[in-house]
Amino acid sequence: MRIPYIHDFEEWRTGFEFYYPVKVRFSETDLFGHLNNTVPFIYFEQARIEFLKQLGFMQNWLDPSNESIPVVANLQCDFLKQVFFDQELRVYVKAASVGNSSVDIHYMGVNADHQPVFCGRGTMVQMAKKTGKGLPWTEEQKELFGIPAAKIDG
Amino acid sequence: MRIPYIHDFEEWRTGFEFYYPVKVRFSETDLFGHLNNTVPFIYFEQARIEFLKQLGFMQNWLDPSNESIPVVANLQCDFLKQVFFDQELRVYVKAASVGNSSVDIHYMGVNADHQPVFCGRGTMVQMAKKTGKGLPWTEEQKELFGIPAAKIDG
Amino acid sequence: MRIPYIHDFEEWRTGFEFYYPVKVRFSETDLFGHLNNTVPFIYFEQARIEFLKQLGFMQNWLDPSNESIPVVANLQCDFLKQVFFDQELRVYVKAASVGNSSVDIHYMGVNADHQPVFCGRGTMVQMAKKTGKGLPWTEEQKELFGIPAAKIDG
Amino acid sequence: MRIPYIHDFEEWRTGFEFYYPVKVRFSETDLFGHLNNTVPFIYFEQARIEFLKQLGFMQNWLDPSNESIPVVANLQCDFLKQVFFDQELRVYVKAASVGNSSVDIHYMGVNADHQPVFCGRGTMVQMAKKTGKGLPWTEEQKELFGIPAAKIDG
Repeated sequence: MRIPYIHDFEEWRTGFEFYYPVKVRFSETDLFGHLNNTVPFIYFEQARIEFLKQLGFMQNWLDPSNESIPVVANLQCDFLKQVFFDQELRVYVKAASVGNSSVDIHYMGVNADHQPVFCGRGTMVQMAKKTGKGLPWTEEQKELFGIPAAKIDG
Repeated sequence: MRIPYIHDFEEWRTGFEFYYPVKVRFSETDLFGHLNNTVPFIYFEQARIEFLKQLGFMQNWLDPSNESIPVVANLQCDFLKQVFFDQELRVYVKAASVGNSSVDIHYMGVNADHQPVFCGRGTMVQMAKKTGKGLPWTEEQKELFGIPAAKIDG
Repeated sequence: MRIPYIHDFEEWRTGFEFYYPVKVRFSETDLFGHLNNTVPFIYFEQARIEFLKQLGFMQNWLDPSNESIPVVANLQCDFLKQVFFDQELRVYVKAASVGNSSVDIHYMGVNADHQPVFCGRGTMVQMAKKTGKGLPWTEEQKELFGIPAAKIDG
Repeated sequence: MRIPYIHDFEEWRTGFEFYYPVKVRFSETDLFGHLNNTVPFIYFEQARIEFLKQLGFMQNWLDPSNESIPVVANLQCDFLKQVFFDQELRVYVKAASVGNSSVDIHYMGVNADHQPVFCGRGTMVQMAKKTGKGLPWTEEQKELFGIPAAKIDG
């Protein structure tokens, strides 16, 4: 298991606190009898939104009068173990590093035995609606992500 | 096979002309090895939109400045035959009857052997955005549906 | 609001006890800004499975060596109120009547203010795998549905 | 635009020949008014299957008696331009490199103006059902991917 965005899996794993619980739906399985590969991205989206809501970001972004919106620039997932119907998963989320107007968000799905079943990451950018360009985070926003100063650029 | 909205299946079937072709996606199957039961409603939506676009309705409804939007009041589906991955279906659509501000739309999915695999219907209402109430069709709109005058109320 | 399978809404409503909680996902909304019309059927499926699991049916049906499987013969939904992202719903389920090898299952989605937002029903049949035909319920199975004897046929 | 798996975009782009056409469905949009970020992965899956079918792989893998199945080890997507309802896209697919029992598959979605709207990649492994481990490609299989010998390991 060599995953480009994870140097030391055990260390990486300890950085997570927040999780979003999901239960695999019947309609999320496919004819191979397990969770369809496209579904973890739906879980990531939902877990990311709950995470950002908890940090205090989401409320503004869902307000149509707000000047910025969050834009997903990329997403990736590594599938580690098969996942089956009705399994209860925890989808952990954390901010791994913060850029000028972007944030690198990491994900880890674990089953009821605490075994990682998939992991992933994605860059999210705060975009100014007017210009379509990245809107730099304020210092206050950067702090909200709750990550060590060394992982904050700029 | 007793379906409340179909009196004579063979006669009912002849009323269809327009169809939307779909190919069953892998992600649309479930662990029972066939098309998940929730998916025909996605096909119905897509077929309905293409049908309404062809009739000339959809363009206005997708324009945010338009005073009305189409609202689905109800939907139903009868599952007649199992459908499998990769099958190519035709999803037929027709306006079965027109009310004051609503239309009863019927659907029939057939497989490559022209066997009906599912059928359905649903009421769609033209709603005025300001009032949230039904906006009566104009005479011109009623004619667009292309159904016999006897099936047009009012 | 005239719904064919509901005679008296208030009376109908009181028959529900079991519910499955759902929270509307971002990916379940559409460009009209609300819950896409095809999604309540996913909620119905999940609520039905949890209901049948609680009654003791689902375990056998998910066992590949079992001689019967549940087959959904039809499904319908009436959309009563708009549903939006992040709303927490309860999707109630009940067996409304039981036939020889089928059961009529009813659904009601309510929002946090206990207002019905959609309701629905569908026939489910216990099918024998060998013959592809309905497999009659045993007396024990009929009792599991927990409905008054008057609503049990045969 | 810096994408780890693309060195020279214009060169990378010329390597594609096979594509799968899709039309953005209404149910695939979200409340931000565009294609939901989780949907390109569904397009990738479908495009990959059609590509593998065309190469002659898929037929065996869908046969339950076959000794191997394809397993997706990872997937990623970079979102380049917004995609909207009803747009017609081409989702291009190619094998970028072949390992001992794996293949690196690349994807590029373009709109009607031939502008790339998203791109991606993913590793697929041929897994032996008995052992759950990678089953090496035969020489014949490696040739099927139709890529230069220099990009074939082993």
